[in-house]
Amino acid sequence: MEGCLFALVMLWSCILSRLSAAKLLKASGLDPVVLEARDRVGGRTFTVQNKEAKWVDLGGAYIGPTQNRILRLAKEYGIKTYKVNEQENLVHYVNGKSYPFKGSLPPMWNPIALMDFNNLFRTMDKMGEEIPRDAPWRAPHAEEWDKMTMQELFEKLCWTRTARRFATLFVNVNVTSEPHEVSALWFLWYVKQCGGTMRIFSTTNGGQERKFVGGANQVSQCMARELGDRVKLQSPVYRIDQTGDMVVVETVDKQTYKAKYVIVATPPALNLKMHFNPELPPLRNQLINRVPMGSVIKCMVYYRENFWRKKGYCGSMVIEEEGAPIGLTLDDTKPDGTVPCIMGLVQSFKQFSVIVLRRICEIYSKVLGTDEALHPVHYEEKNWCEEEYSGGCYTAYFPPGILTQFGRVLREPVGKLYFAGTETATEWSGYMEGAVQAGERAAREVREHLSTCFSLLRVSKYQFLPEIRALPFVTTFWERNLPSVDGFLKFLGVSTFLSAAAAAGLVAYKKGIIPRS
Amino acid sequence: MEGCLFALVMLWSCILSRLSAAKLLKASGLDPVVLEARDRVGGRTFTVQNKEAKWVDLGGAYIGPTQNRILRLAKEYGIKTYKVNEQENLVHYVNGKSYPFKGSLPPMWNPIALMDFNNLFRTMDKMGEEIPRDAPWRAPHAEEWDKMTMQELFEKLCWTRTARRFATLFVNVNVTSEPHEVSALWFLWYVKQCGGTMRIFSTTNGGQERKFVGGANQVSQCMARELGDRVKLQSPVYRIDQTGDMVVVETVDKQTYKAKYVIVATPPALNLKMHFNPELPPLRNQLINRVPMGSVIKCMVYYRENFWRKKGYCGSMVIEEEGAPIGLTLDDTKPDGTVPCIMGLVQSFKQFSVIVLRRICEIYSKVLGTDEALHPVHYEEKNWCEEEYSGGCYTAYFPPGILTQFGRVLREPVGKLYFAGTETATEWSGYMEGAVQAGERAAREVREHLSTCFSLLRVSKYQFLPEIRALPFVTTFWERNLPSVDGFLKFLGVSTFLSAAAAAGLVAYKKGIIPRS
Repeated sequence: MEGCLFALVMLWSCILSRLSAAKLLKASGLDPVVLEARDRVGGRTFTVQNKEAKWVDLGGAYIGPTQNRILRLAKEYGIKTYKVNEQENLVHYVNGKSYPFKGSLPPMWNPIALMDFNNLFRTMDKMGEEIPRDAPWRAPHAEEWDKMTMQELFEKLCWTRTARRFATLFVNVNVTSEPHEVSALWFLWYVKQCGGTMRIFSTTNGGQERKFVGGANQVSQCMARELGDRVKLQSPVYRIDQTGDMVVVETVDKQTYKAKYVIVATPPALNLKMHFNPELPPLRNQLINRVPMGSVIKCMVYYRENFWRKKGYCGSMVIEEEGAPIGLTLDDTKPDGTVPCIMGLVQSFKQFSVIVLRRICEIYSKVLGTDEALHPVHYEEKNWCEEEYSGGCYTAYFPPGILTQFGRVLREPVGKLYFAGTETATEWSGYMEGAVQAGERAAREVREHLSTCFSLLRVSKYQFLPEIRALPFVTTFWERNLPSVDGFLKFLGVSTFLSAAAAAGLVAYKKGIIPRS
Repeated sequence: MEGCLFALVMLWSCILSRLSAAKLLKASGLDPVVLEARDRVGGRTFTVQNKEAKWVDLGGAYIGPTQNRILRLAKEYGIKTYKVNEQENLVHYVNGKSYPFKGSLPPMWNPIALMDFNNLFRTMDKMGEEIPRDAPWRAPHAEEWDKMTMQELFEKLCWTRTARRFATLFVNVNVTSEPHEVSALWFLWYVKQCGGTMRIFSTTNGGQERKFVGGANQVSQCMARELGDRVKLQSPVYRIDQTGDMVVVETVDKQTYKAKYVIVATPPALNLKMHFNPELPPLRNQLINRVPMGSVIKCMVYYRENFWRKKGYCGSMVIEEEGAPIGLTLDDTKPDGTVPCIMGLVQSFKQFSVIVLRRICEIYSKVLGTDEALHPVHYEEKNWCEEEYSGGCYTAYFPPGILTQFGRVLREPVGKLYFAGTETATEWSGYMEGAVQAGERAAREVREHLSTCFSLLRVSKYQFLPEIRALPFVTTFWERNLPSVDGFLKFLGVSTFLSAAAAAGLVAYKKGIIPRS
């Protein structure tokens, strides 16, 4: 196909980003074409329909307050959301015992662990405040924090094994990689741009509050339907030539497209799937070699009955056990109470080779304290590490040293190439929300460039009043003011010294060693 | 082109590895085809010829003792080697002063720094002894060391800023990346498989002892000449289909090749340039997203005269200065003394944006203590970070956590795909030597698979008696037995305690507090 002057070609694997860009461009009177490598739209969202599960999200699924762009799209297409069940108790499984709890984070009973835990999360948020959303490399301590892994930071901050172990799970769950793999600067930025430790980790009032009735794929499908035959499936791009007036794009299915501009909306590393002429600039060429995707398998276990709710558990489990295949679960029962299901995430590659349904059910049975967990009726699993056109899930992570050296070219256009994809977002990057933000931002960049060249009509920015309210996370006096273990020990030391000095003074006074004047 | 039954297709960027494989296969009676993405053979070796420089290696150039495979090839083609000049003094520039020295490592004058430095290098070699060349992930402390960056290890081992600063330069120079970027396990393995800290860093008796007269490219060129029109230039592969009986390989220049086996000889990350059908297995898919290439610019400054030799310097400079563009230099004058030249390496990306010839000359002038360095007559530079078909230079590095999780699939065949490239070598991986080892190993794997299937004739392994002798590095008594700063302080503490105790005993004895029996 030879595209027209304003044809816009977009490339795979962050399809939401591409579709959002295309939708905005179409609304601006342009004529975009969307190229998708797979035989389906959806990218890292993937809804499967079958008799047993009705519908199930085997990829990205959760949305929550402050994610107003994806919620705006869903509303436009009439896609409803529902709240993930958190009525009953959550459960924290540690040292072989289950501790039911309410709220976002499991409570700590040991006062030293409590201080430590409280200080850790407070400090992560405080450090996050220093980091600019749109330019983390400009943070005052950017260089220092980027040279550190999260594991090093945890070793510096945490006094107790309890806090360190939970901190590891916190990294595993949020970015599907290990604390020793990721730059501290990057991880702190990531948490910050999602709204902080509470917003990112919580179900109620946080990133996992809701799901789409009918599956997350619908948003992409509705956009694709609207774009019609502008969306080309099974069209992986392998070549981008910018040497002429128009950008020439070639696909593995032997099609050639010509466009005025190209928005490349893939995870950064997947830029490598394309051969560029001329070559990409050195910094971008280095960046795309340095930002791998996380590793995750999503495992859905179906049961005849919703036995956990009867036992007073909502289905959310935080599991800390050496060798346990699953670290975090959420209830995945349908909103009408049918198709009882537990969704579990495997983040550790060490566990990947040994994933079997039996082992998953065994740990659920231990945590929930019932044999009923040993008798699933159906199972669905998706290993995102095998996906050539995602490279992994949920998102790209930055190993130490990369963000400060190469981060600033993440969104920088290269000639007529503009870059989108959730990894380039500055709010909820790594989520569907970030994909939409990035796609619309890239589309606006193109439109602005075009309108300066050809004085095209401008359309106003989308207006949207959020329907799902974001509540602030209220911290207690003690959460704000409880000392760290370090501070507490110093306090103890100083007060011991002062008490001892006072006591010695008193004794001396009594004994008449100090003259009574 | 439709290849014959035994046609063998090989892919770009570690051309030495490919050519070595092809050569061995041809010698075994097979009919290999070599596909090269660039318009030249050579890959990460790159010899330029012009009036000013005669010939100059802007890529890989150095060879040394124990690199017997590349030396065997060179001998076969009659390519001579010459010794890099190290007749006069090397110079260590630190704290704004130049200290001439002889030997591999700059001497330390401060006794605490000396102990620290000595202990650091001894410990790196000792740790290396524990790491198996062919399976570093099986080292007894593999997990622990892989979770650590080299910077963390240096912080643990080094007591002095002097040692830590030199240690940073040691990582920069050897693997063109930063201590906080690389896994300690990987770096210790890398140094070990080159023969230890002395072998890897030394000019005389080490990895930088020699160069090829006429340039390093000649080895590839001679092999390519021997293989004739089996070598296809400008043929970047973008697609590999293994779904049929034969492997189908498609190139950007619209050619299709069919082969019984394919040896993929590229840096691991460049596997991403190809679209695979079926997809690669999950572990390999994750590996190739996680091993970026180092960053380096090679800068050659030419002078009318070899003024440094007259001043008693050989041209080797070890430069430690904040903000200096260059960290290490070597004399690059031709073996007959013509075309005086200093070769310098820029490893820090922080310096990349500010590389100008003037700044390079300024630091040379400071280090060598003469204005003559300010007046170059010619300049050549090669920024390897911009090369799409290398991704960087010299070699791939492993960030923390990757080697233990994904390393074991580095050489594991995938169906009819076999993997070569210097990154898969177990001796001098990252060097030309490693490329040859890897190519020949992959060719043997294919040949062995074929001969079990079709009982083909076997050819014996290459026999070669090294012409360049490798001398053992002799350590002195003090190098072996000098305590670490830690050990020294403990010794001081214990001996102070013992002396004090002895003195107290003596006093007590004298004063009659201890009964004289």
